[in-house]
Amino acid sequence: MSTAFVTSRRVEFSDTDAAGIMHFAAFFRMMEQAEHELLRSVGLSVVMHDASGKISWPRVNAKCDYQSPARFEEVLNIEVRIARLGKRSVTYSHSFSRHGQVLATGEITAVCCRVREGVPPKSLSIPVAIAKKLKPFVAI
Amino acid sequence: MSTAFVTSRRVEFSDTDAAGIMHFAAFFRMMEQAEHELLRSVGLSVVMHDASGKISWPRVNAKCDYQSPARFEEVLNIEVRIARLGKRSVTYSHSFSRHGQVLATGEITAVCCRVREGVPPKSLSIPVAIAKKLKPFVAI
Amino acid sequence: MSTAFVTSRRVEFSDTDAAGIMHFAAFFRMMEQAEHELLRSVGLSVVMHDASGKISWPRVNAKCDYQSPARFEEVLNIEVRIARLGKRSVTYSHSFSRHGQVLATGEITAVCCRVREGVPPKSLSIPVAIAKKLKPFVAI
Amino acid sequence: MSTAFVTSRRVEFSDTDAAGIMHFAAFFRMMEQAEHELLRSVGLSVVMHDASGKISWPRVNAKCDYQSPARFEEVLNIEVRIARLGKRSVTYSHSFSRHGQVLATGEITAVCCRVREGVPPKSLSIPVAIAKKLKPFVAI
Repeated sequence: MSTAFVTSRRVEFSDTDAAGIMHFAAFFRMMEQAEHELLRSVGLSVVMHDASGKISWPRVNAKCDYQSPARFEEVLNIEVRIARLGKRSVTYSHSFSRHGQVLATGEITAVCCRVREGVPPKSLSIPVAIAKKLKPFVAI
Repeated sequence: MSTAFVTSRRVEFSDTDAAGIMHFAAFFRMMEQAEHELLRSVGLSVVMHDASGKISWPRVNAKCDYQSPARFEEVLNIEVRIARLGKRSVTYSHSFSRHGQVLATGEITAVCCRVREGVPPKSLSIPVAIAKKLKPFVAI
Repeated sequence: MSTAFVTSRRVEFSDTDAAGIMHFAAFFRMMEQAEHELLRSVGLSVVMHDASGKISWPRVNAKCDYQSPARFEEVLNIEVRIARLGKRSVTYSHSFSRHGQVLATGEITAVCCRVREGVPPKSLSIPVAIAKKLKPFVAI
Repeated sequence: MSTAFVTSRRVEFSDTDAAGIMHFAAFFRMMEQAEHELLRSVGLSVVMHDASGKISWPRVNAKCDYQSPARFEEVLNIEVRIARLGKRSVTYSHSFSRHGQVLATGEITAVCCRVREGVPPKSLSIPVAIAKKLKPFVAI
């Protein structure tokens, strides 16, 4: 059985724009924050080190559908699930809601990569120990 | 025949993150900047006033595919086309490149709305005069 | 006796820059967030309405001294005091620390203003009821 | 005789906040952008490499006084001078104006540092070749 990771964020003044609502790009920052919080909740981080060096998760895709605006000082409920746990990538799906009303839904796909200074990131198979920790969040 | 609107942006230090590259959410800010620049190039703005009040363009969808990272001080070429000019909405498609190499491609869909203080935005048919100015950018 | 308002913020990935540390401008966003949280803690908001309309607090000065960098995922302790409660303005002073080590100290001065659409903000005397709620945070 | 470095920036939608004006922290991002543009104009960068490794310029102080708000789509004129060229630090002073009216003035002090991965930055004397290129901007 899958479990959503649930967190929340308050809309800060610096997240808003002259339309009086949370700027559309700020949703992506919050999606990433929720993803990183999910990782921390199982003892992982988006930047980790193993015997061979640094592992990180560059994004290859991000998207968001906006249904209803979020306003200054509102507290948004954010649910994160893993829509797809691939061999080398993870697709996180996010749902923003307030008092049970969905405001926006999004997805971010990140690829597991070996990262070395001055060299382009190289994808690698998600280590078994990491995949095991992510499995409980896979949506079914 | 369609024409892409072409502009450029330099990757500023505040656009970068601890991975040493432009943060993925910064692409969305640049996509919006390019869209607004396209509008200004034909005498429009994302916030306009007509006899009945204020017209604006809330976003209902935004997405981006990332192929290759952008780094501090690089100048990115941004091409904007209109992938779809609907009755009430516009879908802009963006392509980021550097020296001819595509780094990322994205899309933003915005809905033409009547905006009034304290009331949710209400979609309206894109005024003919506006649609006419956007037509040259429609991808074919 | 004065009391500092104490809160904390985690350094998010989008707060960092290519130097691998929290971007200097991100400290100002956190200072503002802490100030707004202080206001909420006593039932106020940076945007309020009374019988005569909207009251807000435009900033006239902001500054920060940086002693030591903050890094991704670190949790920063933020203490806010009121360095000066004037007739029409408030100067908040902020101290960022981590495990007891001060990383940065800053100040923001905001002016109490009547805000009306389309008219420049006009300063007004801080209403007594508001000043009373701020007094406990005045540094002595 | 000193020369100000002059550039300009348009207020983008993502720079604005729910008060309908440019967010106060966005001025700091623009100050930094103008400083980096000044450096590029004389063949320097805020991140450089010499025979001994990487040189960068961490900020130790930043401040801004706000006189008048900046709004969406306005083009701001930014003048940068060097208020003080020290042995190990540079203080840049910035003036934002629009149609000759000053909107804000600020200062950033950056320290010349040797930067090595995993070690705190260490200040060093500004190399003569660099100081020479900065001298024309010293305010007198």
